[in-house]
Amino acid sequence: MSHDSQEIQISRCSAGVISAASDSVAVEEPLEIRLDYDDGAARRSQSISITMRTPGDDFALALGFLYGESILQGRDDVAEIDYCGQANEAAGSRNVVRVELKPGIAVDLDRLQRHFYTSSSCGVCGKASLEALQVLGQQPLTNVTTTFAADVLTRLPQLLREQQQVFGATGGLHAAACFTPAGDIVSIREDVGRHNAVDKVIGQLLDQGTLPAHGYGLLVSGRASFELMQKALVAGFPLLAAIGAPSSLAVELASAYGLTLVGFLKAEKFNIYAGAHRISA
Amino acid sequence: MSHDSQEIQISRCSAGVISAASDSVAVEEPLEIRLDYDDGAARRSQSISITMRTPGDDFALALGFLYGESILQGRDDVAEIDYCGQANEAAGSRNVVRVELKPGIAVDLDRLQRHFYTSSSCGVCGKASLEALQVLGQQPLTNVTTTFAADVLTRLPQLLREQQQVFGATGGLHAAACFTPAGDIVSIREDVGRHNAVDKVIGQLLDQGTLPAHGYGLLVSGRASFELMQKALVAGFPLLAAIGAPSSLAVELASAYGLTLVGFLKAEKFNIYAGAHRISA
Repeated sequence: MSHDSQEIQISRCSAGVISAASDSVAVEEPLEIRLDYDDGAARRSQSISITMRTPGDDFALALGFLYGESILQGRDDVAEIDYCGQANEAAGSRNVVRVELKPGIAVDLDRLQRHFYTSSSCGVCGKASLEALQVLGQQPLTNVTTTFAADVLTRLPQLLREQQQVFGATGGLHAAACFTPAGDIVSIREDVGRHNAVDKVIGQLLDQGTLPAHGYGLLVSGRASFELMQKALVAGFPLLAAIGAPSSLAVELASAYGLTLVGFLKAEKFNIYAGAHRISA
Repeated sequence: MSHDSQEIQISRCSAGVISAASDSVAVEEPLEIRLDYDDGAARRSQSISITMRTPGDDFALALGFLYGESILQGRDDVAEIDYCGQANEAAGSRNVVRVELKPGIAVDLDRLQRHFYTSSSCGVCGKASLEALQVLGQQPLTNVTTTFAADVLTRLPQLLREQQQVFGATGGLHAAACFTPAGDIVSIREDVGRHNAVDKVIGQLLDQGTLPAHGYGLLVSGRASFELMQKALVAGFPLLAAIGAPSSLAVELASAYGLTLVGFLKAEKFNIYAGAHRISA
């Protein structure tokens, strides 16, 4: 059985005629991430997140998610990562990943962004979202000198599409990719959730010891939101390029933290919403 | 100031030449939803959700979200809905919506889907996701007899695009719309988050007393995920039509609960993933 797409029987309506057909759909299943850690006094086990994702690269997804939330500072924080319980795929036990931190690795879950929000008084705004990153100790990437040639960027949409295997079958997956200034894609992941695709790429880089990703760019198949920019910043990517549109808060984050943000990336043109100094014509 | 798009200065690269330009981006800001309610013993005030959304229709977003999570059973459960604190837009106070339930309206937050998940043991799977809906008391829509003509559906993509005002300016918004079997769009909402666009439509219908939406279809500009299908089911839509692809779990939910699921909706054709009996050629 393939983990990422599934063949099903459907009906197809074309020019007013309905007929039987078959189709591939992208697989979506919940993944629960659990964290085992010391809270200073005792050993604790806590569910951190449930996300709807496409099965595959689950350990990378868990690592990337925890890194993006600043719960992990590095791969060395992790003692063990495995599926919770008996490996029984039919019962869904491959849908719970347990990340065990080494003894002594402190976790303050209150530092999580969403916890920051909920403890703030009646004033949640874009400014507060940016300030939450400061609270987490994020440093601007202003001093990262990596540059990217315009013609390298304009070749990326075609490269991405060629390597999006499951999208080709289902039309239903987001993709994220890590690429070099020379234009080589070194990692690509697909998922029904665009955040998950980015987490999987970042988790793989973490596992390989490649973070911070100062020498790479991050490519996403959809739009650039605040949350994707935050993940790029935490992972140290000096540039995020989106095939789709950016949001206002994504642009503000990029400007405030010295990231380069490219949007509407196409085969012959693109927009630069922040950090144009890293792009050479 | 417009709430949903924002004009900014950018650089544009075309045919290798970088030049100054201006562009509109979709506004993204956090919204916190707070619930004031009785827990049986005392009055409580709790933050339920933080979502990144495009400002506008915030009360509808809050109502639709709470209805979709089965926290609200109807509009009558709500005593008051307002922005928390002083109306001071600059300080972000229009980014916290407070929903006050009437005295005696019981809320069991443990019934929330995500809480169901986290209390389950090592066996989270698509089946568990569907069972969680049973726990919430969701009834199948098998007996809803509304039908839709194929040529009504194929006209929807063009209608949607014509009415997506902010998308036209920014290219950066998802849309959701409620339509009749005659093909009229009676409500359309846009948002940086596709879940939010659906919540805003459902919240508006709730506010108008139009739920359950047994006589309408729900149209979404992107893909059909499990969570969007769940919102459609809870709101009583017998049909969800997506411009994009469905996921495996969206198809399973539609089949299990008697919904009609249309995907890849285009001007001349579409796929029917479940409930083909509601479509007439």
